[in-house]
Parts: sequence; C-alpha cells; structure tokens
Amino acid sequence: LYIITKPEIIKILNKHQFENRVKKGFISYSKKQAVIPPVGELLFKEPPGEVHIKYGYIINEKYYVIKIASGFPRNGEIGLTNSQGIMLLFNQKSGEIESILLDDGYLTDIRTAIAGKICAKQFTNDIKTIGIIGNGIQARLQLKYLLDYTPCRDVMIWGRNLGHLKQYKKSIEKLGFNAKIASSISKLSDICNLIILTTSSKKPLLFKEHLKPGMHITALGADTKLKRELGPGVLSSADLIIADSIEQCKIRGEISHSLNEGEISINDIVELGNILDNTSMGRKHENDITIADLTGVAVQDVSIASKIFELYLKSINEI
Amino acid sequence: LYIITKPEIIKILNKHQFENRVKKGFISYSKKQAVIPPVGELLFKEPPGEVHIKYGYIINEKYYVIKIASGFPRNGEIGLTNSQGIMLLFNQKSGEIESILLDDGYLTDIRTAIAGKICAKQFTNDIKTIGIIGNGIQARLQLKYLLDYTPCRDVMIWGRNLGHLKQYKKSIEKLGFNAKIASSISKLSDICNLIILTTSSKKPLLFKEHLKPGMHITALGADTKLKRELGPGVLSSADLIIADSIEQCKIRGEISHSLNEGEISINDIVELGNILDNTSMGRKHENDITIADLTGVAVQDVSIASKIFELYLKSINEI
Repeated sequence: LYIITKPEIIKILNKHQFENRVKKGFISYSKKQAVIPPVGELLFKEPPGEVHIKYGYIINEKYYVIKIASGFPRNGEIGLTNSQGIMLLFNQKSGEIESILLDDGYLTDIRTAIAGKICAKQFTNDIKTIGIIGNGIQARLQLKYLLDYTPCRDVMIWGRNLGHLKQYKKSIEKLGFNAKIASSISKLSDICNLIILTTSSKKPLLFKEHLKPGMHITALGADTKLKRELGPGVLSSADLIIADSIEQCKIRGEISHSLNEGEISINDIVELGNILDNTSMGRKHENDITIADLTGVAVQDVSIASKIFELYLKSINEI
Repeated sequence: LYIITKPEIIKILNKHQFENRVKKGFISYSKKQAVIPPVGELLFKEPPGEVHIKYGYIINEKYYVIKIASGFPRNGEIGLTNSQGIMLLFNQKSGEIESILLDDGYLTDIRTAIAGKICAKQFTNDIKTIGIIGNGIQARLQLKYLLDYTPCRDVMIWGRNLGHLKQYKKSIEKLGFNAKIASSISKLSDICNLIILTTSSKKPLLFKEHLKPGMHITALGADTKLKRELGPGVLSSADLIIADSIEQCKIRGEISHSLNEGEISINDIVELGNILDNTSMGRKHENDITIADLTGVAVQDVSIASKIFELYLKSINEI
C-alpha cells in the first residue's frame, strides 16, 4: 500500500502532462469501455456540506478508483479549505488496495482544469478575449491550463464579490494575463468568444441575450441537481451541446435543467468523448455557438489517479 | 490522519465489546437519526468480483464513514482472501479525513456476526440446537459470537462441499461446540430452533416445509439482488419478518424477492432498530416463527468504525 502525500502529488503533476490520459479516459467512457456507476452523494446540514463519491474503472486497465471529494463552504471559519478529499486505487483483479492519494481534492481541481482545456482546444475559434465568470480555484486554474494552448492573454472577469474579484485579478495577472473587471456579464459577453463559468451558483448567470455567433461556452460550476449557471433558452440556442457524460447530465448540471423544462432533448446532446474520438462531430462553422456542460465524470479521476500512481511507482523504482 | 492496521484493529476488538454500539446504530437508523444513502456497487467480469460502497453517518456524531468492501471469489488462486476492504472516517463538520482502517474486510465480518447475535438474543426461544447452513467465515463467527449468550453447544451443520464442511466442523469444535453434519437441510430443520443461513447462494436452500413452530431464522447470506437463501412462501409463513433496513431490503436480499413476487407487502416487515427500541414489537408467542433478513447496513459500519477509532485514540493517548 502506497500512501502518496499532496506535496508528492504536486511534484509529479509539475513534471508531467495529463491531458492525453484524461482525453483517452473520455474516449474510453464514450465508447462504453469504462464502468462508471452513478455518483454517490452525502449531504450535511449543520454546518452545510456535501460529499461526492465518484468511482469506476476503465476495462482492462489495472486499477479501479474511488474518489471522495467534499465541499464544506464554512471551512474558512476554522482555517481549512472548503474542498477536502482523497482518491483510492484498488486492483481490478483482486480488490486489494494499492494506493491512497492524499490530494485534499486537488486532483479534482486539476482534472477539471484539464477538461476545460480539452474543450477550449476542441471547440473554440481563434480565441480573442477569454471571459471568466466566478473567481475561485477553477477560475484561476482554467486560465493557467490555457497558457500553453492559446497566445491570448486578454481576460475579462466577472464575480459577485468585488473584494474577491480584485484578489483574483492580481493572481491571474501574476500568471501573465491582462485582466479587466467587467461591470456586467453583458459587457463580458460582448467581447469574449470563450466564456468559462466556474461558480457554484444556484441561479442562472448567463442568459440567451448574452450569446454571440462563434462563441464557445464551458459551464463547469454546476455538478448537482440544484446548481445552475445558464438561463432558460441558452442551451437550445446553441448549435452544438456537449456533455462530459450524457448519463450524468440527465440528472446533474445545466443540461438536466433544460431537459426537465423540455427545452432540449437527449438527441440534441453529443458526448465529449465521442467528439474527441471523431472530431468531425465537433464545431462545424465559424459562426456556430458551442456549449460544453462539464459535471465531472469519474473517468477523469480514474485517468489522473492511475497516471499519478504509475509515475510515482516509476519514480521510486528509479531511486 | 491515523492509519490503523489490521493487527491493531484486532487488538482493540479483542479487548472491547461492540454489541451495544451496533445496537444503538440500528436504533438511530430506524429512528431516522442516520443518513444512509443507497449502497454503491461496482462489478467486474474477468475475474468476477463485486465491490460494495456503504456509507453514511449518524446525525450529531463526530464522523462520517465510507466503507469499501469487495469480494473476488477467485482470489484463492493467487493466495489472497476473497474479501478485501477498508473503512474511512471523515469529520462530519469539515470533511477532513481522520482515519483509515486497513481492516481487509474484517470489520464487516465482525459487525455482521454482531448483528446475528443481536437477532439471536432478540428473537429466539430457549436455544435447543443451532443450525448453521454454509461453512465460511460467517458460519464460524456467528457461533463464536453466540458463545457468551447461550449455553447451548449443540450445532447441526450443512454445506454443499463435504471437505469444507469437515474442516468447518473441526474449527467450531475448537470453539467448544458439539457439531453434527446434517445429511440434508430437512434433518437440520427437524432439530434446530435457531437456523442461521450464511451462504452466497443464488438459489433457495431453505423451504416452507422446513419451518417449525417456535423457530427463528436469520438469513444473512443474500446482500445483492441476485442472491437468495429462502424459498418462496418462507417469509409469508413467518409470524414476524425483520429487516435490518426496510429501504435496502426492498432491493436486496430475501425480502426483495418475496416483495417482487407479491408474496408479502412492505407493511408485513418490521425494522430491527424499531424492535430493539421497543421490544414489545418482537416475538409475541413461543410458537411464532420469526425470520430476520440481514443485508448489512452502513450504520453498522459507521458504528463499529467510530468506536474502533475512538478506542484507538484513547489507547495512544494513554501511552
């Protein structure tokens, strides 16, 4: 049993790229070469908190992975980060535990950032200005992971708390971006042709009137039934709706709301892994509006955790 | 983060009793003072294997618990035990991981044995002869845990594999029992007024004609949709049907089959924790036939894991 600490994980993350592995994971998933049961969920009232258990495996790989990731929004009051969590790797052939990754939820942040980057690469036109809605960890990581893909350094940012927004502005300026605070989402959507929504909002923030031809939107904040960032009519106005997992998006995230409201049907949705496997299914015309709904699929956790552990084993064998 | 190994867990188990805590857990569960989501399940084909994720918490206690327990029936071929698993304790108020119990599935065995003992204490008449069907770990542990409850040492045993059965006979004779091999379940049910079924059978073993007035049966082998130890008409012939969890027994174990077949209805079932809380709901007459269906509820895992960890913390603070 190998217990891998967060500093060791970060060291491995800094030395290697995980994009191809996560991409391969999405493709396996969409080709039904992965077994990913529905997300387990545990809720707490006082203080409020939610725990997600995401788990599964890619057929014929070595490990099955169980991830426990939690968000306790009042953790700041006791000097802790909101997200906590670990990933567990077990042998697919015997059930033996092989490794515990004490990542405190960090690998979830990374694999989400990677999924955002994969969408940006796959669906955007030439990026003019990047729009970021929200100012948490993903707001920063999405930009960090775009650095080596696009030369664009112009960013418009929007958030509800001006203090947080100013802090966030500084942190992304350090990454090398020119950031402007938008006074409204309208102002941001007038300029940006890639918009990434990263909030935990339960009320829509971006509406139909904000859409412009050629835009790509990635909405990654909503991962439960209650959260929602896109208003009614947004998804049905898109030329391409992408789900990281159609099964999961039926009950979680943006797509679930639009399905429930009868605005779109299952047949209007294409799964990310299918497009990555056959890119002709992606953006067709420069003027198309494309929207990706990322709810976070266990296959991303399986992919990143397996690669971290493989690299860890390699590194200790080299010593 | 405290990582507690199996030898350390066994040391704690040997020094303390956990029956009252598990009993309290069942009562909390039936009083809706526990949050226990449906069991997560992951299946493997080659080699065959199944993983169960059982998790939840008792409101106002300190920890939430996630248990991962697997059965890979061909593990013997590679020199491993079939069951593998760990339990994880997290802080209910922050989501922080507090402890990892590397019990290899052993605590699941123990809490199941304890549940069996609780049922024996609650539902049997004076025990004349104990009947055990199956000869695996539970077949042995159920008897071990009955030692300090009943003076009865007469056991009839039945199993499909005579070699295994003879080995099992020796192991329980070491515990102090007088064991006789029954040539059929009929022979066993003629004599025994407590019968415990402990197999992973997918076809019924005990039928309506085996029932005798005053009998108590505990069926604990079937914990999935497919497994089944009791034949049609057995549950509907009972005067009292006990479920460890009504919610869970709707979809798993003996009760689920009889519900599906319309033989019994939900209103015919009483939950164990409710009886433990109000014993007048238990056996009413000496001649009643009572049957308990144990599918294994996460609240048992929550209870035993929390107490193990509390005692561990106490022990290291005493050093």
